[in-house]
Amino acid sequence: MKSSTGINQQDDQRDIRILVDGHGGDAAPAMVLDALEIALSPSFAARFQGSLTLGVVGQEEVLRPLLQQRGIEDSVSLIPATDVVGMCDSPSHALRRKKDSSIHVGARMVRDGYWDALVSAGNTGALMAISKVLLKTLPGIDRPAIASMIPAVNNGRTLMLDAGANSECTSDHLVQFAIMGSCYMQATERLEHPRVGLLNIGSEDIKGTDVIKMTSVKLAETSLNYIGNVEGTDLFGNDVDVVVCDGFVGNVALKTMEGTARFLADSMRSELTSGVVAKAGALMARSALKRFKDKVNPGKYNGAPLLGLNGIVVKSHGGADAESFVSALTVACHEVSENLTDRITESIQEMVES
Amino acid sequence: MKSSTGINQQDDQRDIRILVDGHGGDAAPAMVLDALEIALSPSFAARFQGSLTLGVVGQEEVLRPLLQQRGIEDSVSLIPATDVVGMCDSPSHALRRKKDSSIHVGARMVRDGYWDALVSAGNTGALMAISKVLLKTLPGIDRPAIASMIPAVNNGRTLMLDAGANSECTSDHLVQFAIMGSCYMQATERLEHPRVGLLNIGSEDIKGTDVIKMTSVKLAETSLNYIGNVEGTDLFGNDVDVVVCDGFVGNVALKTMEGTARFLADSMRSELTSGVVAKAGALMARSALKRFKDKVNPGKYNGAPLLGLNGIVVKSHGGADAESFVSALTVACHEVSENLTDRITESIQEMVES
Repeated sequence: MKSSTGINQQDDQRDIRILVDGHGGDAAPAMVLDALEIALSPSFAARFQGSLTLGVVGQEEVLRPLLQQRGIEDSVSLIPATDVVGMCDSPSHALRRKKDSSIHVGARMVRDGYWDALVSAGNTGALMAISKVLLKTLPGIDRPAIASMIPAVNNGRTLMLDAGANSECTSDHLVQFAIMGSCYMQATERLEHPRVGLLNIGSEDIKGTDVIKMTSVKLAETSLNYIGNVEGTDLFGNDVDVVVCDGFVGNVALKTMEGTARFLADSMRSELTSGVVAKAGALMARSALKRFKDKVNPGKYNGAPLLGLNGIVVKSHGGADAESFVSALTVACHEVSENLTDRITESIQEMVES
Repeated sequence: MKSSTGINQQDDQRDIRILVDGHGGDAAPAMVLDALEIALSPSFAARFQGSLTLGVVGQEEVLRPLLQQRGIEDSVSLIPATDVVGMCDSPSHALRRKKDSSIHVGARMVRDGYWDALVSAGNTGALMAISKVLLKTLPGIDRPAIASMIPAVNNGRTLMLDAGANSECTSDHLVQFAIMGSCYMQATERLEHPRVGLLNIGSEDIKGTDVIKMTSVKLAETSLNYIGNVEGTDLFGNDVDVVVCDGFVGNVALKTMEGTARFLADSMRSELTSGVVAKAGALMARSALKRFKDKVNPGKYNGAPLLGLNGIVVKSHGGADAESFVSALTVACHEVSENLTDRITESIQEMVES
């Protein structure tokens, strides 16, 4: 992929070097290594332009035996880090006191150009804080945001950001999120003019907080394809590609989605297994129910990019299994092969100049 | 229900007088009158202590023929109002320029004691603004909130407020919402000490905005059964009874729920009707699927009380059909028979005194 303005031109066949955090996630480290094993298959690498190099960062004495057990010690680089960030560590504690943690070492490796991306299922706040301090933000971006892909009807996708990094945002932050989200959807979904919507509590201009109203005015002045206010019900439709909100609202929306889906699936399961006829019917409809489950499987959409950093970092859900962790790896590979960081830099430059 | 402190004591067999807005809702006025017809059946009235009187407020020339068609003109009082608030009218326009609208006249009737409650599927902002100005808020309450009942596992229910009336809230407003929500769940769900949670983006104290952190400190100092932070996933669980949030977050959560449920139902339907075996299976599992649908039917939970007003007003979903509008009527009947307004007044008084 050649960059149109010539920043950081790359060969079409670039090397994609992905480093994963060996200690992030509820089922780490085993889950992470299982995911690496899957990603080593030729069919995985074949999905991207360029050759794929995989590495894992973490405690050598823990990770080496697991690599050996799987017979992948020659195919996966092991980058040593002595410490681990816990899920309860505060971001500032992880940042200042755990400088040899897997997240810290991983982010440093990306900063210094040894690896192209870091993927972690660990502590979100710590991952964000460490990445922000080590990698810095892109010029023109004050705060990185977590972007989350949401399944939509007709196999569509909606990108929502911020999904939880910034509880309080100014209108300028939200405009920056809109630019980053738009670039991301251009690069990864091949959309020419992604439609950008502002998450609000009604479609009318008079709705929402003062920050939201101001953001709407500013978005309308950009060259983005801004379509105005959208609502929670629009997240799953085909009328918007990028939905912008602050991290508090985005995180509540995302967790509400997760809760609703789980509640509905549990309710359906209990009904379909209560009674012989219903059970038989459910058996006959099994493949349809499985297709349904696959289609709305949140794991399929696992892997939330931390956008706005001068480097590629992808957050996996902490509860991910190996298969959904592979989805997060896929997100990282796409970002690298599409030169996402350069693209966002260029877009912001263009917006500032215009 | 006798009030414990003697405020406004009522007979056990009180008259429940419910006035409905004839012009609110996408399918009004026909839907509203169909709902009244259902509510006139003895089985509906039998659900409440006391006799039930029903009325409809709106344009006489429109409503009278519809009452006659249904043969219910002698059972339902018709209160004339010449004007109608449109869905696009701003709250201030509706408040100042449409003083003979059905909402205006209805709220005035409740204020003046002719009716006990107003139920409307009309313009939410206008309903809130007019009710607030005419009925006033209860002593100690700065702003009314819209409360929304959410289905939870094991046939549980969670009350979330504010669901959209107040985009920006101070910590004092949120504490008032907590008190009102707790009273509501005591009265309607017979819970002695409803568990109150604060909607946040993590369970830890360091999470959230400054307003949220301050609210948490203040809630812990009240006599409420405050259990701390809850997340979007907890809305459907059995660990919390009242979830407090500002109206922006609450509205986004509610609409995200609606969107998720619709998306999942559509996906399931399309899978279950694609292929002969799946179709046959779905037919066999039909009653189970119907039970599932009934269980998670949002219409069943229709009827959001506007809490904190000195009078009872219930908002129905604008897209309600007659059956779900009856659910909103049920909410109003419960509030009247449980003397909810007095109960909230007493609770706030107790909190202030303690």
